[in-house]
Amino acid sequence: MAEECNSIFERKHGQNGIVQPLLTDLYQITMAYAYWKAGKDRDNAVFDLFFRRNPFQGEFTIFAGLEECVKFLDKFCYSQSDIDYLRQILPPSIEDEFYEFLKGLTAKDVTLHAIEEGSVVFPRIPLIRVEGPLIVAQLLETTFLNLVNYASLMATNAARYRMASGNLTLLEFGLRRAQGPDGGLSASKYAYIGGFDGTSNVLAGKLFNIPVKGTHGHAYITSFTGFADLKTIELKPKDGGDALDLLALSQKWRKELVVIFKVVIAEVSDGELAAFVSFAIAFPHQFMALVDTYDVLKSGLLNFCAVALALHELGYRAIGIRIDSGDLAYLSIVSRQYYTQISVEYDLPWFKDLVIMASNDINEETILSLNDQGHKIDCFGIGTHLVTCQKQPALGCVYKLVELNSMARIKLSQDVSKVTIPGKKNVYRLYGESGYSLVDLLQKWDEDPPQAGKKVLCRHPFEESKRAFVTPSKVEALHKVYWKNGEICKPIRNMQEIRERVQRSMRTLRGDIKRNLNPTPYKVSVSDKLYSFLHELWLQNAPIGELS
Amino acid sequence: MAEECNSIFERKHGQNGIVQPLLTDLYQITMAYAYWKAGKDRDNAVFDLFFRRNPFQGEFTIFAGLEECVKFLDKFCYSQSDIDYLRQILPPSIEDEFYEFLKGLTAKDVTLHAIEEGSVVFPRIPLIRVEGPLIVAQLLETTFLNLVNYASLMATNAARYRMASGNLTLLEFGLRRAQGPDGGLSASKYAYIGGFDGTSNVLAGKLFNIPVKGTHGHAYITSFTGFADLKTIELKPKDGGDALDLLALSQKWRKELVVIFKVVIAEVSDGELAAFVSFAIAFPHQFMALVDTYDVLKSGLLNFCAVALALHELGYRAIGIRIDSGDLAYLSIVSRQYYTQISVEYDLPWFKDLVIMASNDINEETILSLNDQGHKIDCFGIGTHLVTCQKQPALGCVYKLVELNSMARIKLSQDVSKVTIPGKKNVYRLYGESGYSLVDLLQKWDEDPPQAGKKVLCRHPFEESKRAFVTPSKVEALHKVYWKNGEICKPIRNMQEIRERVQRSMRTLRGDIKRNLNPTPYKVSVSDKLYSFLHELWLQNAPIGELS
Repeated sequence: MAEECNSIFERKHGQNGIVQPLLTDLYQITMAYAYWKAGKDRDNAVFDLFFRRNPFQGEFTIFAGLEECVKFLDKFCYSQSDIDYLRQILPPSIEDEFYEFLKGLTAKDVTLHAIEEGSVVFPRIPLIRVEGPLIVAQLLETTFLNLVNYASLMATNAARYRMASGNLTLLEFGLRRAQGPDGGLSASKYAYIGGFDGTSNVLAGKLFNIPVKGTHGHAYITSFTGFADLKTIELKPKDGGDALDLLALSQKWRKELVVIFKVVIAEVSDGELAAFVSFAIAFPHQFMALVDTYDVLKSGLLNFCAVALALHELGYRAIGIRIDSGDLAYLSIVSRQYYTQISVEYDLPWFKDLVIMASNDINEETILSLNDQGHKIDCFGIGTHLVTCQKQPALGCVYKLVELNSMARIKLSQDVSKVTIPGKKNVYRLYGESGYSLVDLLQKWDEDPPQAGKKVLCRHPFEESKRAFVTPSKVEALHKVYWKNGEICKPIRNMQEIRERVQRSMRTLRGDIKRNLNPTPYKVSVSDKLYSFLHELWLQNAPIGELS
Repeated sequence: MAEECNSIFERKHGQNGIVQPLLTDLYQITMAYAYWKAGKDRDNAVFDLFFRRNPFQGEFTIFAGLEECVKFLDKFCYSQSDIDYLRQILPPSIEDEFYEFLKGLTAKDVTLHAIEEGSVVFPRIPLIRVEGPLIVAQLLETTFLNLVNYASLMATNAARYRMASGNLTLLEFGLRRAQGPDGGLSASKYAYIGGFDGTSNVLAGKLFNIPVKGTHGHAYITSFTGFADLKTIELKPKDGGDALDLLALSQKWRKELVVIFKVVIAEVSDGELAAFVSFAIAFPHQFMALVDTYDVLKSGLLNFCAVALALHELGYRAIGIRIDSGDLAYLSIVSRQYYTQISVEYDLPWFKDLVIMASNDINEETILSLNDQGHKIDCFGIGTHLVTCQKQPALGCVYKLVELNSMARIKLSQDVSKVTIPGKKNVYRLYGESGYSLVDLLQKWDEDPPQAGKKVLCRHPFEESKRAFVTPSKVEALHKVYWKNGEICKPIRNMQEIRERVQRSMRTLRGDIKRNLNPTPYKVSVSDKLYSFLHELWLQNAPIGELS
């Protein structure tokens, strides 16, 4: 076993090199020992993984990270080196047999139910239900939370940006500001799942097969001071023939354009033109220019248009510009006007549709505000706010014991929102005739599922008077088995499928639940039976105080 | 070369499995190709890595991540699989020779100067200066920023928590809420460097040799409903002899304590006592109890004290309690009163000093407020706010070209704070007689260094009238060579040394610069020569507008 386990470790590469059983809080291991020592190694537990509040002042969350959890279960075991390390940090009073027990531990006796990755989910609904030996189920807690919390937060954030920006192209540019190397990788992955179209992160592209995008930065522009820095100025036309002088052609076009742009040529940077020409020679089919190093309207845009027109003479079509500072709405509107004017002036219909990309410290609110201002941007490159989830950098998923040896457990708290819903439960999503989801319903696991066309009573879990009859047009059982008897039970979906699932799932949510400002809360309810069960157990467990 | 490189890859394990040249933005590679294509492969560049504003509304930052940058340089090369991937995503027009060029690329011609890791640093000061071939220097940008940004942010955050909490024990508990698996690992590492005493993260302990701490969570407590759940109730005395019934002893003590605590015994949870007894049997030398599952004062603390007194009869000394909810100041004060009362009542002097640990969503402001309330906590366990740096989840380090082929470069901006200080520079820290640092001074690289006892003019880089003569008692050259001629030039310090450096460096800062509320900004200045140079270059580069 141990040897086999070590070989699994050696096979681990890339991101998952660190997703291993020691990626956990020490107290899980000390609890495991105390459970073992107390003879609870055969106890059977049910844990629910859920969150209590949607992030970003919103009313929905995208569930992600499940695939990583299932892979973690599949490889769950302690290597000899793990055991050696634990021996070193745990007290010498720990019995040897416990280490033997750990060595033999796998997740084969655990059953994992979960909601499909990429689904919209809501507070209190168990995203994952873990059943199995108490010790193993307990040992999964921290790693599962780590894998789900940030993944879901990022996917939700990305889905919100996607919603704000309609069908525009969204690129994730956050690696440099992300929380550590893997913070960057996970960000790229879950931004893509949440609805982004690509990333600048090359390793993420390689590992996850995400489209990778990027052109150049300001350093590239400032590394050229003038035409003398250009060692190569010739480019072969697209359809063959002798190479032509792209610099001379660009300069010729620049002379024409200063009239349109109403600029004196002395104001237009030669270094910038040199940089653009060299970049166009390197990437004649993908020419995209960063235009704000000096002045977008007086220099960058003009130089770009000059090179784009020169490239056109050689048969190439430029892509567009990127603006990384300034008033993005205004600059994009004016840039589009110039595109259009040139398009008309030279009878080049495609010119008016050249790309305008914006990438300066953009967040969800910026996009909404740009929308109000009628911006003409086609593509956003989004970094810091997206990847660090600046508006709320953590999701508070928790992992709570709800049943032990077939007896329901409740965690009480003076804060009602922290009281857990006890026992093993099933979750159903009830849809209305419109196709929108109406309510999520938690039931005791042995209740009959609700049926389409049949009236069912949905109750608020904690407020007695809040209840409603619902007659669903469609009922979806949200929990499916992903891991049982030591095997992955459902083929793990690829990222593309999960990404599509997100958009499909988002479409089942009414607009008022998804909107940015004062969204309507989605209803999460319990069946009448579960309501009674919960409140009986609560009374049984809450001590009766004595006023004195 | 390629084979050698692949073998380096195979040797990579753990965290650094993902710190590799492809952990970058694609535009670095496209720029590299355009530079190469433009014949700029022999250009020699100087880049500065610096930030513009201190995080957390503070006036200082701790520099961290340097060790990782140097290790990255040491292993910098593209594997065959990297090249294959790049071929796949870059346009087919890219020349084959470029891939050959990339294959042979290493960081051996790069020289890296840096400030010592763990130092307090300030805006605009180059933390790292990279000199070398333009292409390689450019290719390092994103990875360096990724390695420095979060590391410095975390270390700064941790140092602020350390400052707020004086000599109390600080433990990092953030893994479950961190931004991805490595977000958690990096958090543990840099929290320790910033001044924390340990972590709950076992893998961080194993990889970085950080002390690891942890006891049990609420699930452990709720997994026991009463005494019947206890299969083992006996414990051998510390100094040997027959095992005694720890449950019976604890119950005996509990009967005595209900009088002191003024509680009816029916209010005290039996399940909780059972859990504590079982945990004490598992860890008799390290008994620490989570006391807020039911009610801290009516149940948890009382049960803990009962077990602690029972353990004492067997010769063991308990550690203390952890409180994870409620009014931490009040609960800690009352808990300490009970400790003291029991200490007096039973003549056990050590009892009054038992540990009180608090761990409920704590941030810097909470600690400062608890201080004001005269809390009696010995140890904080801090998670979400610490590891995600909730107050400000990203540091904005940038990496700017300041010189190319011995010609200084300036990046202008309408926002003065974004104008770069051009050219290759040296950095000195000037100290006063008190031992506090007075000012950081940037000079052109060929200026004579300032000398102790000699007056030097320090100027604000952008405000003409702000200048002062300083006569330093001590001058420290902040930049040292860490990498040159393909070799690591300074032994990389271990984490313990960096951690000590942080505290030493913090002590050189005046209190008003470090305080939480309205801190005084530390002065960052330039020499008179650099001032003139900067402003001449600015005028040369800024186009003269035309009013019309």
